[in-house]
Amino acid sequence: MSIYLHDIPLPDAQKRFQQALEESGLWRVLGIETIPLDENALGRVTAEPIWAKVSSPNYHASAMDGFAVRAEETEGAGPGLPIQLRVAGHAPQAQYVDTGDPLPDWASAVIPIENVESLDESGNLTADLRRPDSIRIRAAVTPWMHVRPLGEDIVETQLLLPAGHTLRPADLGAVAAAGHADVKVARRPRVAILPTGSELVPIGADLKRGDILEYNSLVLAAQIKAMGGEATRFPITRDEFDSICARVEEAAREYDLVLLNAGSSAGAEDFSAQVIEKLGTLFVHGVAVRPGHPVILGLIHPQSSNASRQSELPMTNRRIPILGIPGYPVSAALTTDLFVEPLIARWLGRRPLELPTETAVLTRTILSPPGDDDFIRVVAGRVGEKLLAAPLARGAGVITSLVQADGLLLLPRGEQGAEAGQAVQVRLYRARSDLDKTIFCIGSHDVILDLLAQFLSERGRRFVSANVGSQGGLIALQRGEAHLSGSHLLDPATGEYNLAAVRQYLPGVPVRLMALVEREQGLMTPRGNPKGIKGLRGLLRPDIQFVNRQRGAGTRVLLDYQLSIMGIPASNIRGYNQEEYTHLGVAAAVASGRADCGLGIPAAAQALDLDFVPLFHERYDLVIPAAFASADLLAPLFDVIRGAEFRKMVMSLPGYDVRRMGEIVLEMT
Amino acid sequence: MSIYLHDIPLPDAQKRFQQALEESGLWRVLGIETIPLDENALGRVTAEPIWAKVSSPNYHASAMDGFAVRAEETEGAGPGLPIQLRVAGHAPQAQYVDTGDPLPDWASAVIPIENVESLDESGNLTADLRRPDSIRIRAAVTPWMHVRPLGEDIVETQLLLPAGHTLRPADLGAVAAAGHADVKVARRPRVAILPTGSELVPIGADLKRGDILEYNSLVLAAQIKAMGGEATRFPITRDEFDSICARVEEAAREYDLVLLNAGSSAGAEDFSAQVIEKLGTLFVHGVAVRPGHPVILGLIHPQSSNASRQSELPMTNRRIPILGIPGYPVSAALTTDLFVEPLIARWLGRRPLELPTETAVLTRTILSPPGDDDFIRVVAGRVGEKLLAAPLARGAGVITSLVQADGLLLLPRGEQGAEAGQAVQVRLYRARSDLDKTIFCIGSHDVILDLLAQFLSERGRRFVSANVGSQGGLIALQRGEAHLSGSHLLDPATGEYNLAAVRQYLPGVPVRLMALVEREQGLMTPRGNPKGIKGLRGLLRPDIQFVNRQRGAGTRVLLDYQLSIMGIPASNIRGYNQEEYTHLGVAAAVASGRADCGLGIPAAAQALDLDFVPLFHERYDLVIPAAFASADLLAPLFDVIRGAEFRKMVMSLPGYDVRRMGEIVLEMT
Repeated sequence: MSIYLHDIPLPDAQKRFQQALEESGLWRVLGIETIPLDENALGRVTAEPIWAKVSSPNYHASAMDGFAVRAEETEGAGPGLPIQLRVAGHAPQAQYVDTGDPLPDWASAVIPIENVESLDESGNLTADLRRPDSIRIRAAVTPWMHVRPLGEDIVETQLLLPAGHTLRPADLGAVAAAGHADVKVARRPRVAILPTGSELVPIGADLKRGDILEYNSLVLAAQIKAMGGEATRFPITRDEFDSICARVEEAAREYDLVLLNAGSSAGAEDFSAQVIEKLGTLFVHGVAVRPGHPVILGLIHPQSSNASRQSELPMTNRRIPILGIPGYPVSAALTTDLFVEPLIARWLGRRPLELPTETAVLTRTILSPPGDDDFIRVVAGRVGEKLLAAPLARGAGVITSLVQADGLLLLPRGEQGAEAGQAVQVRLYRARSDLDKTIFCIGSHDVILDLLAQFLSERGRRFVSANVGSQGGLIALQRGEAHLSGSHLLDPATGEYNLAAVRQYLPGVPVRLMALVEREQGLMTPRGNPKGIKGLRGLLRPDIQFVNRQRGAGTRVLLDYQLSIMGIPASNIRGYNQEEYTHLGVAAAVASGRADCGLGIPAAAQALDLDFVPLFHERYDLVIPAAFASADLLAPLFDVIRGAEFRKMVMSLPGYDVRRMGEIVLEMT
Repeated sequence: MSIYLHDIPLPDAQKRFQQALEESGLWRVLGIETIPLDENALGRVTAEPIWAKVSSPNYHASAMDGFAVRAEETEGAGPGLPIQLRVAGHAPQAQYVDTGDPLPDWASAVIPIENVESLDESGNLTADLRRPDSIRIRAAVTPWMHVRPLGEDIVETQLLLPAGHTLRPADLGAVAAAGHADVKVARRPRVAILPTGSELVPIGADLKRGDILEYNSLVLAAQIKAMGGEATRFPITRDEFDSICARVEEAAREYDLVLLNAGSSAGAEDFSAQVIEKLGTLFVHGVAVRPGHPVILGLIHPQSSNASRQSELPMTNRRIPILGIPGYPVSAALTTDLFVEPLIARWLGRRPLELPTETAVLTRTILSPPGDDDFIRVVAGRVGEKLLAAPLARGAGVITSLVQADGLLLLPRGEQGAEAGQAVQVRLYRARSDLDKTIFCIGSHDVILDLLAQFLSERGRRFVSANVGSQGGLIALQRGEAHLSGSHLLDPATGEYNLAAVRQYLPGVPVRLMALVEREQGLMTPRGNPKGIKGLRGLLRPDIQFVNRQRGAGTRVLLDYQLSIMGIPASNIRGYNQEEYTHLGVAAAVASGRADCGLGIPAAAQALDLDFVPLFHERYDLVIPAAFASADLLAPLFDVIRGAEFRKMVMSLPGYDVRRMGEIVLEMT
């Protein structure tokens, strides 16, 4: 067993897999089933073209409530020249019909009831509108007027729907109207999902150190379901070669596809490749895709001694595709999209899903390993005319990057990265109407931005905040890459917040500067402050490990300003160069023991049950270019900020002063 | 009871309905339920914000298979300056870890296994890579390298998802990772669908004259399901006031919403309004929307003597919204989208669905009643740079117009129509990637275009044909509004097909003219040709009712040419001005007895079991501008036409000669 994988390019891997499936007769619709035509047929895929068995309507039908007449007998009628038609008796000239009623054989048109005068035997108007003795009309009708002729909607034998069509609500109605009571659809592929790993514990378990929650099988099952397949999640199997073999054999007897997750790499306890080599054929081990890499593609040859209820091929030739799926959650989801979705599509006879692609402007430079097809999750939003793509955290373990992602940016093999400001193609998960409702806030991080997001979500806005620090936010505004920015940049010369920075970074740009909160900044320490840290001087102690915020963050500016006043050289602080991007990130570093303290806000300390040593006060503002301040998009934001409910919620968090909330510090127009 | 409705504008109706629901406390999430976090949670809507209960990872985890080390002990290591670290024994300097394993307390970084040399006690390389005596490294690592620190993905207490969020596969994983085993979601609204009508028969019934298949409840149920509700279809109720009252009362006891379909108009057997007035309050009867009009909005006041299992309000105050939905299938579906979707969205706490809107060029002029919000179904496709919108049949009874529709064009109240060539806003049902795969064929109709559509669907193309006749097709090509056109225009001067017409309508435009089939044209008559029609002279008989094709149709040109040769005046033919747009339309007119004969092709006659009197031969070609002839989009079309399978299929139809199929008659570049 090798510790190295031999990655092959993505298109080669996909082609090799498809060829293996073609050779095994598995690159086709798996099976056809006839199901009743009811609402459960929604989303199923037609297995054959559907031709009309009957016409609709299947007779000439009145299109209105009114009187059926012979069109030629109405000729000449006009406002001053009424014509009277007999309703009662034998051989009537007019007959009442409701909408949908068949036209009498002798009739050729319908006059709507509101256009006739109903008369009694004496020729007077009668209240019995529908059974008068005769009617009087004052306008002629042409043949087939207000009639739905036989076949108006559907003509017997016409093609209604092609094969491979995913059934929508109206399709079901049309198929019924065409005389069908059931429909032939592609059988749903059955997919077995086998989580393996001795460190895995099921969802909801109390976590011990080293336990990993097994939730990949849940994500995979939901993906399969969304694709139109049926997924079964097997119990967790420990990292034991024989146990995994047994499970795979069991799954291969009953299912169309086996997903083995994880153990697909080449580590000490990665058995997937060996298992597949024992039970069948391994085609690919390692794909040059990021995230992804340790992907395995193979075919299992089930033992012929075991009968299969699913077999549509003679048992001896039956092959079951198997995928070894990497363990990192983002890799797992992406691998499933790349390899399983096209297969399920083929098995259902539908076209593979294709995400809509749009051109977007990249908000920051990204580097990419040139050997890989590199898939980067991005947040997207429209700011003015530009569609922006802000890259999310790259780690394959960061499932929240998939939650936050609005799209996927592919940097193909051969490219080494992309520059900030560059136009890139983004495959969008989200409808454009959603993106048009997105408020893009780039800048400094504060916990209350999460609260704001929740309040705005209830008001039809998606509030997306990217944390790049106060300076980064102003630079984003300057580039037209955000609707607003959270900022707490102290001007050392005046002691005032943000005004100087706005003038520096946004010269000549009309902006609204609105106070959000005044807040405390201080040192977060573990509960009980075990090392007795009292202030910034403590950071010089050799037993103190500090964790810092990134360059450009307002908190970093504040720290540097205070250090310079106190004459403390940053280089003497252990951990000064260890950077986190959010207050919660700093809090997590302290909570986990990775650092002894970090500068931040009390809400973050409270969230992770840390102690807090208050040191400074500062104002946190929103900077909003005038063009956006007056736009509909942001109106709910101002409603929320000026409303009592949000203010109350913020007041319940420690360390915030909301008295100036919503106050306009500066309004340039 | 009045026979007239008093239509009110759509926004007024929507507002009145919403106000009534607000006053009854029904304009809010209906209820919250806690469900297990499994794949059935997919598509459910979060009822509360979801905050993280645990961090993920919840310990410092190795991000690679390799050796955990103290970063400071690797300082100075380089290619020529190896450092050796002890693995065995007490107080090790390095320890093997698999990906995901917790970092030992003393360690601060991980060195990937491929970057170390494993040594035995004697300092020689050993094959026991994971349990060596010591390791040798040739590069330093910085603190936290290849470590996933606690909280890298999720920090305890952080906001994971807002309320009102529709759960996707990755969301389920993130919620699980954050320590949840279940999730609070909005309860699914329960909707009762009550089909009423004495003329209705269930799906699959043998149809007698006057029977109407009841499939609206199926479409409505599928719509409700797609919206996230639960629909129950009640059995058909006859048009009897008391029966309908009883059903509505029954439904109101158990369901959140009652949809009564139809009987919403003001005809003799339309009881919906009366029923609602008896059992509750009627707010709106008639909405100025087309199709739609007889829409009823009301509230039922259930009898307090009946206990309700659903009640979340005291019984006496409980109100159940009820909609009277028009009977025409297109009206029914549209009414449900306009009034029910926003209500279900509100009840689930999610945003209402919004179709993406794009600007498209209208292909033909449409008229619209200025008093209505007029919703017009359109077929859409991209031809060159233009997105085109071709209006479909307007009839509210034409369910196939919803099947074919790619989008909806709204002509708002006050507008009288829109001109061909005008830019209009279209709400699209289809993804843009689908539209980019659409081949737009406008021109003459032939039954084999349906076959072609089926073959192309299997090759990843959507083939949309709009039937406007041969001349209309060439005009569409001239305007850049089609990729190709089917044409059989005889040049009376030369007896040749299409060449003269192409020169006339597309002067200077390089085109490919490709023969598709040669086909018979003749008179379709009822089975047995009861009136003994032998040729065009027969059309002059006073007992013969003819049905014609529309002006510009090749078949009409052919007829007029032959009539002129024979000296037959068109004005002497009864029914000459009665026009149908397709061969099947003509066949249906003959089959139903609306006409005695019509000119057309044998395939259409055979489809409806008619007799056929062959009269002429003609060539049916495809006209394709050179720009599209060489485009990827059309490549599968040529593959199909040149392939044996399609040719064989066409040969199996009567009256076609395929010998010249695929032959290029003219190629201008």
